[in-house]
Amino acid sequence: MAFRWEPVTQLGQRFVDTAENHARDFAGRAAAHDRDGTFPHENFDELKASGFMAATVPEEFGGWGLTSNHDLAVGISRIAGADGSTAIAATMHLTFGQIGAWFNRYQRETGDEAGAAGTAGFLTLLGGGAIGMANATEPGTDLRHPLTEVTSTEGGCAINGRKTFGTLSEIADLMFVPSRRAEPDGSYRSVAAFVPRGTPGQTIKDNWDALGMRASGSHDVVYDNCVVPEELVLDNGTAWGEDGLINVVIGFAGNLPLVATSVGIAAAAYDEVLRQVKTRTKAPSGRPLAERRGIQHLVAQMEADLVTCRALLSHAGRHIDQAMARPANEVDLDVMHDIGREFQCVKLVANRKAIDIVDTALTASGGAGYMTSSPLSRLYRDVRAGPFMQPYSPVDAHEYIGKLALGLPPDIDD
Amino acid sequence: MAFRWEPVTQLGQRFVDTAENHARDFAGRAAAHDRDGTFPHENFDELKASGFMAATVPEEFGGWGLTSNHDLAVGISRIAGADGSTAIAATMHLTFGQIGAWFNRYQRETGDEAGAAGTAGFLTLLGGGAIGMANATEPGTDLRHPLTEVTSTEGGCAINGRKTFGTLSEIADLMFVPSRRAEPDGSYRSVAAFVPRGTPGQTIKDNWDALGMRASGSHDVVYDNCVVPEELVLDNGTAWGEDGLINVVIGFAGNLPLVATSVGIAAAAYDEVLRQVKTRTKAPSGRPLAERRGIQHLVAQMEADLVTCRALLSHAGRHIDQAMARPANEVDLDVMHDIGREFQCVKLVANRKAIDIVDTALTASGGAGYMTSSPLSRLYRDVRAGPFMQPYSPVDAHEYIGKLALGLPPDIDD
Amino acid sequence: MAFRWEPVTQLGQRFVDTAENHARDFAGRAAAHDRDGTFPHENFDELKASGFMAATVPEEFGGWGLTSNHDLAVGISRIAGADGSTAIAATMHLTFGQIGAWFNRYQRETGDEAGAAGTAGFLTLLGGGAIGMANATEPGTDLRHPLTEVTSTEGGCAINGRKTFGTLSEIADLMFVPSRRAEPDGSYRSVAAFVPRGTPGQTIKDNWDALGMRASGSHDVVYDNCVVPEELVLDNGTAWGEDGLINVVIGFAGNLPLVATSVGIAAAAYDEVLRQVKTRTKAPSGRPLAERRGIQHLVAQMEADLVTCRALLSHAGRHIDQAMARPANEVDLDVMHDIGREFQCVKLVANRKAIDIVDTALTASGGAGYMTSSPLSRLYRDVRAGPFMQPYSPVDAHEYIGKLALGLPPDIDD
Amino acid sequence: MAFRWEPVTQLGQRFVDTAENHARDFAGRAAAHDRDGTFPHENFDELKASGFMAATVPEEFGGWGLTSNHDLAVGISRIAGADGSTAIAATMHLTFGQIGAWFNRYQRETGDEAGAAGTAGFLTLLGGGAIGMANATEPGTDLRHPLTEVTSTEGGCAINGRKTFGTLSEIADLMFVPSRRAEPDGSYRSVAAFVPRGTPGQTIKDNWDALGMRASGSHDVVYDNCVVPEELVLDNGTAWGEDGLINVVIGFAGNLPLVATSVGIAAAAYDEVLRQVKTRTKAPSGRPLAERRGIQHLVAQMEADLVTCRALLSHAGRHIDQAMARPANEVDLDVMHDIGREFQCVKLVANRKAIDIVDTALTASGGAGYMTSSPLSRLYRDVRAGPFMQPYSPVDAHEYIGKLALGLPPDIDD
Repeated sequence: MAFRWEPVTQLGQRFVDTAENHARDFAGRAAAHDRDGTFPHENFDELKASGFMAATVPEEFGGWGLTSNHDLAVGISRIAGADGSTAIAATMHLTFGQIGAWFNRYQRETGDEAGAAGTAGFLTLLGGGAIGMANATEPGTDLRHPLTEVTSTEGGCAINGRKTFGTLSEIADLMFVPSRRAEPDGSYRSVAAFVPRGTPGQTIKDNWDALGMRASGSHDVVYDNCVVPEELVLDNGTAWGEDGLINVVIGFAGNLPLVATSVGIAAAAYDEVLRQVKTRTKAPSGRPLAERRGIQHLVAQMEADLVTCRALLSHAGRHIDQAMARPANEVDLDVMHDIGREFQCVKLVANRKAIDIVDTALTASGGAGYMTSSPLSRLYRDVRAGPFMQPYSPVDAHEYIGKLALGLPPDIDD
Repeated sequence: MAFRWEPVTQLGQRFVDTAENHARDFAGRAAAHDRDGTFPHENFDELKASGFMAATVPEEFGGWGLTSNHDLAVGISRIAGADGSTAIAATMHLTFGQIGAWFNRYQRETGDEAGAAGTAGFLTLLGGGAIGMANATEPGTDLRHPLTEVTSTEGGCAINGRKTFGTLSEIADLMFVPSRRAEPDGSYRSVAAFVPRGTPGQTIKDNWDALGMRASGSHDVVYDNCVVPEELVLDNGTAWGEDGLINVVIGFAGNLPLVATSVGIAAAAYDEVLRQVKTRTKAPSGRPLAERRGIQHLVAQMEADLVTCRALLSHAGRHIDQAMARPANEVDLDVMHDIGREFQCVKLVANRKAIDIVDTALTASGGAGYMTSSPLSRLYRDVRAGPFMQPYSPVDAHEYIGKLALGLPPDIDD
Repeated sequence: MAFRWEPVTQLGQRFVDTAENHARDFAGRAAAHDRDGTFPHENFDELKASGFMAATVPEEFGGWGLTSNHDLAVGISRIAGADGSTAIAATMHLTFGQIGAWFNRYQRETGDEAGAAGTAGFLTLLGGGAIGMANATEPGTDLRHPLTEVTSTEGGCAINGRKTFGTLSEIADLMFVPSRRAEPDGSYRSVAAFVPRGTPGQTIKDNWDALGMRASGSHDVVYDNCVVPEELVLDNGTAWGEDGLINVVIGFAGNLPLVATSVGIAAAAYDEVLRQVKTRTKAPSGRPLAERRGIQHLVAQMEADLVTCRALLSHAGRHIDQAMARPANEVDLDVMHDIGREFQCVKLVANRKAIDIVDTALTASGGAGYMTSSPLSRLYRDVRAGPFMQPYSPVDAHEYIGKLALGLPPDIDD
Repeated sequence: MAFRWEPVTQLGQRFVDTAENHARDFAGRAAAHDRDGTFPHENFDELKASGFMAATVPEEFGGWGLTSNHDLAVGISRIAGADGSTAIAATMHLTFGQIGAWFNRYQRETGDEAGAAGTAGFLTLLGGGAIGMANATEPGTDLRHPLTEVTSTEGGCAINGRKTFGTLSEIADLMFVPSRRAEPDGSYRSVAAFVPRGTPGQTIKDNWDALGMRASGSHDVVYDNCVVPEELVLDNGTAWGEDGLINVVIGFAGNLPLVATSVGIAAAAYDEVLRQVKTRTKAPSGRPLAERRGIQHLVAQMEADLVTCRALLSHAGRHIDQAMARPANEVDLDVMHDIGREFQCVKLVANRKAIDIVDTALTASGGAGYMTSSPLSRLYRDVRAGPFMQPYSPVDAHEYIGKLALGLPPDIDD
């Protein structure tokens, strides 16, 4: 038996067991949601009911207190084997809690009482059952340069802008909206607004229609003079576009489960095609396809790629956990960019290998996998989403890794 | 300006010009047919009206007499840039005529009067406007070992079997059905039945539903005691499973335009993404994406792959034309396997590179191409069909090429 | 700073520290030994003097008792960064001790007193300072089917055969010679002979002359009626060619440090080229090469590959350590083939990536690395040795992995 | 039989036949010259004696008048199969003649009498038996920005600078030395000096010592106040660093035979390993290696890569010949950059594939090819030289191709 990717903490084991239970139910629904592009509300009802959605919220705020990003990613990879869309949608919420918890601790350890109160506020909401999501991506810019703007207005702050790829927006109760806010001198600060669902001026467009991940509800969200109270807009402590700790941490900890999603999809494709070639035969010999050396060669290639993906996730996950366990006084931008740099290598290779695995599974399936009725055809579309997830796309990742390795500032300005 | 792939004969130029005219009209319809999985009947009405569908039928039988397989493939690649499904569906008919014409000449030169009369019969039908198609692929076996069986019955021959990937079956008037037929000693002969559409016992299943090439009408076709007159069943001159000249010729001449389809799709993806990166800009600099070195790198990669594909198609096409122009007494299995072996190399590499190009185009599109509204998301699904087209899939191709290169019989039995 | 690969045990840390100390001295000698194809005797004098060569011998037999194969491999990778030849030559001895120690424990736990006495014998020799090596590879066969033959003769057993790639043969005191021995019924047993250096009939050919690893002293060793006492010939407990536990364990535990050698070489090439591009400039701009985006792209590629290699080694090393720590009653062929299968994936990918890294370093060096005076040109030759090391070469590895993954016996008979 | 790459002109056929005759003799000498790093003077004596070295000089100047760059490259690829060093060294001279002849015609057609007289002068020398070479490459800059400087001095022009990779310098009678020359206003002109061997101040360093191509005599050449008459310094008609026609033409026409060298080397490796696997057997089955499916897979991979290389060379060669046959008034920078852009794609892919082929041959050889005694070990080192040859290395090629494809100026300034 090939080694699977396993959790490293007890709480992680519980999380993964829960994920596997859910996955059995989700698998049967995936094809229909994919076909229709519908959000799997029943999956999320079940994920809420089991407590899964509260896993990353600290115990003091009502959750399980799962701090291992590694184990979070293991659990998500199990969900992804059944339904990639559910996996990424759940991730949007779960990492929101986990990174929020880390940041809350960091704020307390660095004496940032006001900040800590703010993060405690939303952790309390999450612990109480609210669903949160990052609503960060915008067309025509990168994550460090949101064009969405916050301006002071009567009764608070007005938000104006358009976000895309708003995964989980179908059910999220609370959006985390990275923005910029002008200073009197015309320069911008980097800020983030927390927007409760249904705030006037916020429109969830219900327009997600993509090649894959069709059940993820990744709609555009438009903010048109959407006004929230001043206390729901947090200053990130940096100028707009400036490199900041929280962005770097989100970059890896928010992304590892997304890479794990791709790998979980690839593993499902591998399992599916192994099943096929063991049972199907070919005339004139009538031998099982599994006995053909050409098929064995493809299987070896897929397995080698899968081992590579698992080794990479395990490697990055352990390092991320170590970095996030550091006391605040041992944390700085350089330390976190070291992790970010390694993580981007992992993301670059694992996302590509995951695509390769599903592609090879299609090749081994000999045409059967190209039919809509085969799960392989869905997995092929779903797995292609991985490299688009920010930060970073492959182009940017090469620049980020290369510059850091060469001792240059990791700015993606080229 | 990058070099395009151009025809080498005058008639080929006419064919390609006609293809380009059609392509302009087809482009606007492709997305809807893809979405709905509907066959583009209007495209084929236009292809018939322009005479395009008669291009490969010899003049004596009422067609244009296009004998250059190279130029046929160039024209098909242009159609493919607009609609891959139409390109492969048209190919099914056009190569049927072209290879039939070649075989008719071969039969006459070798004194096979009966055979020549048979092929002349169907060429006359094609020249008169009939649409023909090969209905060859079956699940669980390869092209040399059809399991569909022809048996003698009252009033002619009964055909029983199931064919898959019946591209163009939506409108074909005449199916070419490779089969086997038992001898009194229990051994089988390799035969082919010509089945007029609508013959009782033939059912076109209307069940094509695939990842891509969704408008190609590649339905299953079932033959259940489908009876045709004895004269519509031709003996291929070989035992069942035996290596034969016509199979080898179909292998390359029938396939080159299919590879050209993949490359045409890739070229369309490249053009689309070039257009995008020249016009889209990115904050904070506001520069066009085209000025980013990372984008230039991807563009260079796509262009290098596209040049490779075109060089391969041009190379194989010239060699195929030379081989098919040989007098019958200079043609034998070895000569044709030389071409087949080179062609399989070309198919293996060009199909893979075509997939790589569309994949890289997606990467360069930065997420925009993943949306259903982008042509890239359709091209990504369509281009993946190439390697499945027989003969050969990648697994079999490696075996065929390797064995021939090592002086071993090119049997795919492993 | 990019993460290096670090040991996981305290003893491993001592071993790695020692390796790093040695590496500093070895680095300056590598070019000359490579040029002249001479064995670095002074390196091995130093490795003996520091106790490094006794690291894997159990404490009870006079060594350090390093049981972690993971940490052994980490240390070897450090040596490899200075001199690949020394790294593989040292490995031949160190794994001999480590696997011997494992097998000795296994024999004791399974009640095989005679076997345990035999392995204790050679461990005692190693603990006393003897240098051992496996002398296994033969041309024209694989490791499970040695053609070297042991026959009973006056005064003991006569060994006849020819071994190749006898790395470390220049100084080894004791050769482990896998052989076959005929039974009265004509069948063969799988046996291993221990041959002290200088036994009459043994000739070390002094003929190693290869593309790379030129200082490894990997001479042919000929056994021509070489007679050893009967007690130095051990029956492996299996028929000739039969799958056996010790072969499987040697397959991964003996090989991990060899893969680590390739990765150590790749890391050295990466460091070298980083150094170059940070300092060299290019006219007309005069900017350091490091500021060119094309160079940054290559650097990112190398770093991603290196992270992949390290993740793979770390992954396999942990699993190997866990497997070798199992009590004898939890060990069987299936358990060990699970490890072997994963390890072969790791070897396949890491050896290839290591080659890719050095190749990319050459590309980034822009011609400078192609000169004999550059360490890159040596590293390029040395790193290519990795895939040849048995078991398995890439061809065999695909077959072994594929068959195991498909539930078939892992025999490389095809 | 796999298709070889064949000439397209009659004169080309003569050239290729002559090359094949020479190759038979060169093959036996290659190993010794490689080992010792000696220049194969006897090869060049024979190449001169047969008239081969005069092939590209126009008939009016005493040569054969071979104008097809395609056929020149075919012939060179045949030489390369025997000895890569001889192939690149002969290329330095032969392209010098061919491009010179083209430029001479261009000058005459554009009314540049003075220029035409200059090129006629050196063509007369070449026709009379002189050996010419480009002495262009310099460390730390690119070909458009030579740092070697020409200054006016008593008795003519003094040249100062250092050239590297001076292939053929061991026997060249005439060096073509791209340089820069200051204008009164401090700006530079792009110039080229023709330096007869032995001119005082010119030192050929006899220091070539590289990983491969060890017999090519690619020594450094130092110009230290080396004075030539004013008439031997030609102004290229452009400012220093400015894009110019002659540079672009040299870029492709001077380089195609160098790419053909890599492919010729790869073809030789393929032939060698085919021979091996057909004859070697493996215990226990004793079957020839050729019957192993894993070996067949590698063979298919090599053949597919080789077909790709040949298709690319053939494609580029035909286009280059067409471009160089144009009348002067149909030639401009854009036309030539179109060819250059396609050629760089060809070079990028073919050089890489050629390396891959030899690498795969090593894999298939199973260790035998790693020995110095095997030609594969030399071919592996020689073939790696290809990507370094300018213009362009892979980094620069991506930039050049990408920028041209995107409609940007093809300046490698990044």
